[in-house]
Amino acid sequence: MGQQHGYIKADDKDKLQNRLKRIEGQIRGLQRMVDEQAYCIDILTQISSSVSALEKVGTIVLQDHVEHCVRHSIENREDTEQKLQELTAAIERFLKV
Amino acid sequence: MGQQHGYIKADDKDKLQNRLKRIEGQIRGLQRMVDEQAYCIDILTQISSSVSALEKVGTIVLQDHVEHCVRHSIENREDTEQKLQELTAAIERFLKV
Amino acid sequence: MGQQHGYIKADDKDKLQNRLKRIEGQIRGLQRMVDEQAYCIDILTQISSSVSALEKVGTIVLQDHVEHCVRHSIENREDTEQKLQELTAAIERFLKV
Amino acid sequence: MGQQHGYIKADDKDKLQNRLKRIEGQIRGLQRMVDEQAYCIDILTQISSSVSALEKVGTIVLQDHVEHCVRHSIENREDTEQKLQELTAAIERFLKV
Repeated sequence: MGQQHGYIKADDKDKLQNRLKRIEGQIRGLQRMVDEQAYCIDILTQISSSVSALEKVGTIVLQDHVEHCVRHSIENREDTEQKLQELTAAIERFLKV
Repeated sequence: MGQQHGYIKADDKDKLQNRLKRIEGQIRGLQRMVDEQAYCIDILTQISSSVSALEKVGTIVLQDHVEHCVRHSIENREDTEQKLQELTAAIERFLKV
Repeated sequence: MGQQHGYIKADDKDKLQNRLKRIEGQIRGLQRMVDEQAYCIDILTQISSSVSALEKVGTIVLQDHVEHCVRHSIENREDTEQKLQELTAAIERFLKV
Repeated sequence: MGQQHGYIKADDKDKLQNRLKRIEGQIRGLQRMVDEQAYCIDILTQISSSVSALEKVGTIVLQDHVEHCVRHSIENREDTEQKLQELTAAIERFLKV
């Protein structure tokens, strides 16, 4: 069931967890801001910043996926069509096209 | 300092908190997925979904802001220039232009 | 049928036309690049750049719309609900939420 | 200098040219709309639609690039690092992260 597992570089794993922890903090900050009637524009700024942070996490995962899983699949001629289709579909979901 | 406060409709406040709670759950889910080596494509799908959910929250806040704060500022001719500039700047930050 | 007409500041009109001319040139450039088998990554860079240029045009139109049409509608209490709903819908189309 | 050339499937080439022609028409339509003071919201709708059309073109080029150039580079172990870095950079430019 190898293909069910993902691969994230050891270095990136810590980096991703730190980024995700920070994003979780931003989301909790947003709940507080809504609760305390913070100024709408400040809420919107925090949302834009969380979106960018999440997209950055996405590109790190994408890069690891391409450099490891997609590459491995091509080198071993294993499920390559599926891997490439999945990759394009994931990019399209990000771009919402 | 009235203008430091935002305005979110009572109805929207609950709706926003529910959405933000769900997004917080998605972010914690992402931490688990990274930890458990979930398949990269599944991680990417969850990230796209969290981004869309956050942007939806942003448009609800934006709508309340326009319908209340911006409208109020125009009706009362109070800080209108500033309010309109802030609004455009917030939209530009969302679009990253 | 006043509301069928838009309002773009005289200054912005020239600025927009110049930008749109440049974008039209970029699109024709893309046709040439596809025709001449330019390197895919160069094509993608040109597409990203055209998208950003179009979004910038969008924010200029949006700003004029808010500063003139929306403001006028609120000051005169004319079709305000509709104007505000249209505005939010336009922003949501941009963000694809 | 093989790597300077891109690869777009014969089928996709026509599809892309048709799409780009249509987008060029949309951009010229936008110039007319600005000229004739079309309603701002209609201009914004046309811009959103052109942006989506351009992004769709981008994903077709990206898919061909991955399925041909990136795949070829991995199979032949030729410039693979560079190809993968270029790919991630192109995706990041699209997402503006």
